[in-house]
Amino acid sequence: MRKVVYGGACSLDGFLAGPAGELDWLHFSTDVAAEMQSRWATVDTLIFGRKTWEDAVARSGGASGGSMPGVSAFLCSRTLTAVPDGAPTLVTGDAADFVRALKTQAGKDIVLMSGGNLARSLFAAELIDEVGFNIHPLLLGAGVPALLNPGRRVSLELTQCRQLDGGCVLVLYAVRHGAAAAATAPKVARGRRARR
Amino acid sequence: MRKVVYGGACSLDGFLAGPAGELDWLHFSTDVAAEMQSRWATVDTLIFGRKTWEDAVARSGGASGGSMPGVSAFLCSRTLTAVPDGAPTLVTGDAADFVRALKTQAGKDIVLMSGGNLARSLFAAELIDEVGFNIHPLLLGAGVPALLNPGRRVSLELTQCRQLDGGCVLVLYAVRHGAAAAATAPKVARGRRARR
Repeated sequence: MRKVVYGGACSLDGFLAGPAGELDWLHFSTDVAAEMQSRWATVDTLIFGRKTWEDAVARSGGASGGSMPGVSAFLCSRTLTAVPDGAPTLVTGDAADFVRALKTQAGKDIVLMSGGNLARSLFAAELIDEVGFNIHPLLLGAGVPALLNPGRRVSLELTQCRQLDGGCVLVLYAVRHGAAAAATAPKVARGRRARR
Repeated sequence: MRKVVYGGACSLDGFLAGPAGELDWLHFSTDVAAEMQSRWATVDTLIFGRKTWEDAVARSGGASGGSMPGVSAFLCSRTLTAVPDGAPTLVTGDAADFVRALKTQAGKDIVLMSGGNLARSLFAAELIDEVGFNIHPLLLGAGVPALLNPGRRVSLELTQCRQLDGGCVLVLYAVRHGAAAAATAPKVARGRRARR
């Protein structure tokens, strides 16, 4: 089944953007370009959260976003009732129901273009299959959080970890679903909190 | 000058313990043991935050904590007025002033045994020199946050990144202070948020 993938570049303290939306800290490199190229080859669907889409439109000077050759784009919103021509297809119903149905259709991977809000509801519904971050070497302190509380533990399996240019760290995880998560729960450590 | 070091084992979403203090997710391994052994060889001072100390006392069944051969232990609290015999030395004044003075004294490294609260005030005062986490492969959703908003950006330099047993990722950073932070600010990326 096609995977739903969530992630992005973040600070060590887990923000996708600073308190005023700042992205000046992003470090772009040939490492990142290669990583993105290999990622996009496996993707044919984007799902935007409303805030992320509005942010992308504002940053691009008003382009309605979402159109890439061979890629379908959807925009999940509980508040919008219409979008401009060229914008992603508006989804106003339950995002989890929509994504659940989409996963049963044939296709390549589905990437969430969202901050923590849409991801939270899809983590809660156990619909996210892969999560990855390009952790940048700074603390932003505040901003757009990448991970909000889905109301349950989410068990992960590390599939990749490597250093990128600029002191960035790429971590990629498969989400363990249901029985796999229970069967592979970490060993219980005794005593007080481990410290490095 | 001796360094002030902060960090610990955390979830990918940045919690040192779960919402009810859960640590059952900690993965202990020979990797972690080796890392802790080499770390402790460079340390002669511990500074506890109050909550972390109280938590350690509760977990140990009431031992007052803080006594290790050759290691001085201090307990920073704005609320406690006395501690039991054998407890760390109580510091009731400004924690930043205390740590600033301690750093000017000869000695080995100083480790903060705290959650995010004490670390936040010491990040704000630019007194933390090294930060490191053993990132465990799960989302806790809520709990004791490792990193609270220090009210400013903190620039870091990655000094170590490696995979540990159990899908854990060890990341270690030097904190860039003052001019070093400004001189080495990341390049400005153009356009919208980079996605992997």
